[in-house]
Amino acid sequence: MYDTIIIGKGPAGISAAIYLKRSNKHVLVIGKDNGSLYDGVMIDNYYGFPGGISGTELIERGVKQATEFGIEVLQEEVIAIDKLDHFTVTTNKNTYEAKTVLLATGKPRTTLRIKGFQQYRGKGISFCVTCDGFFFRGKHLALIGYNDFMLHELKDMEFLTDKITIFTNGNPLTVPVEGYPVVEDKIIEITGDGEVAKSILTENGEYAIDGIFVALGSPGAVDFATRIGALVEGSNLVVNEDFQTNIEGLFAAGDTVGGVLQVAKAAADGMHAAIALKKILKK
Amino acid sequence: MYDTIIIGKGPAGISAAIYLKRSNKHVLVIGKDNGSLYDGVMIDNYYGFPGGISGTELIERGVKQATEFGIEVLQEEVIAIDKLDHFTVTTNKNTYEAKTVLLATGKPRTTLRIKGFQQYRGKGISFCVTCDGFFFRGKHLALIGYNDFMLHELKDMEFLTDKITIFTNGNPLTVPVEGYPVVEDKIIEITGDGEVAKSILTENGEYAIDGIFVALGSPGAVDFATRIGALVEGSNLVVNEDFQTNIEGLFAAGDTVGGVLQVAKAAADGMHAAIALKKILKK
Repeated sequence: MYDTIIIGKGPAGISAAIYLKRSNKHVLVIGKDNGSLYDGVMIDNYYGFPGGISGTELIERGVKQATEFGIEVLQEEVIAIDKLDHFTVTTNKNTYEAKTVLLATGKPRTTLRIKGFQQYRGKGISFCVTCDGFFFRGKHLALIGYNDFMLHELKDMEFLTDKITIFTNGNPLTVPVEGYPVVEDKIIEITGDGEVAKSILTENGEYAIDGIFVALGSPGAVDFATRIGALVEGSNLVVNEDFQTNIEGLFAAGDTVGGVLQVAKAAADGMHAAIALKKILKK
Repeated sequence: MYDTIIIGKGPAGISAAIYLKRSNKHVLVIGKDNGSLYDGVMIDNYYGFPGGISGTELIERGVKQATEFGIEVLQEEVIAIDKLDHFTVTTNKNTYEAKTVLLATGKPRTTLRIKGFQQYRGKGISFCVTCDGFFFRGKHLALIGYNDFMLHELKDMEFLTDKITIFTNGNPLTVPVEGYPVVEDKIIEITGDGEVAKSILTENGEYAIDGIFVALGSPGAVDFATRIGALVEGSNLVVNEDFQTNIEGLFAAGDTVGGVLQVAKAAADGMHAAIALKKILKK
């Protein structure tokens, strides 16, 4: 059992990992990709780097710094976080257990750029089967996704209805799906009656639905948080001055809690969260 | 007239300078030395530096980063800050004017390690002639110091009394002093009656005094702040969530405002202060 599992290998996550490890805490970092510090992004204003540094290089330096301290940094994709008396973190490869979890997955910059998407968001379009699925029992549901994350949502959806259609939105399916129709066309529009979404229009056809669930790409901090019952405001996790959410032991730091989306702030958040985590872990 | 003069060239000061300069603000950084990031200090836990980095190297990288942005970084010693309708910053070489000032001088790690010093601190031992001198009008005062800072305090003291003795505490005098006795011996003890300091004991003699003022080394943020009327709690400047002190236009960031004394926190403070300064400067 880890003291803390940190999800995200950016400035907030790695900074927290270093401070925790220096206090002899047993930490694990699980990171999928470079998030908003992707290739091509230049950071000029992070203190200590004359001439700037690329996002990729900064991420790599951070991971190197962590591994030099003996911290495990895994390249896996977290699909679910659950809490009973402790936390269970499920990735595409394994499950891990921890006393506390720090969400430092950054701010997802992606959304579905489809006509009608913004209009019907929250009006028949949802992002969390566990949260909103209840209202759609027995209905005909669309699940937009193509990978592990979609499969995880599909399993939750099966408790609600057997009328499910998978839409990959043009992405190749990376997981096996059995017993449900899969539409691999690109989605062109989501239409409705003005009040609620009613159908999905693809390049090759129109599909009437009662509800749409989106599980595209990877779940972010807000997805995990919502599922586990943590408070979210807009696209930010709500944390107290110790960077703890309303769920005991669940912390969040960096872009995911809002404020200025800057490396300096994320690194400092991670440090502060680690200091607070140390206090909790002492108990 | 500068938009902002930043005093201190460490993580908080340089970070603020970069953010302000990126917003086209006219900034000047005045730094004296590396403060607590002196030679020999290794920083392992600042995000982005695998293997750690020495304090000196980090400071140098920061200054290089700032000058590459076209920011002036002066190697001068600030002796006084005054405010009328704008700020005047006096160094050992020149005076500069600015609309706002950011104090980022770090936390002074020095104090007088002399027997009786802690006992009589605040009981006959003071650190600010402008603040406490009034209570010692016409009295026999000791001024402990040896450089520009001491000379600045001496000029304020002359309005109060002509019975002044300078004690350099073993330091060679670096400024000319005329008309007052100068004792260059090392101070061994400050003695008193238990209530208040009464005399200074050096290697070679004992000197009866009514009050002692300390102006050793360089003034720090707390010294400047106290003189200008800013609130201080213990050894920390009191700032609001925008890093502004109770004096309009006077900001402080980094170690000098307290909290954890870490590079990540100082750099983030500087960034946050810069964002708040930009808003004020817009008005």
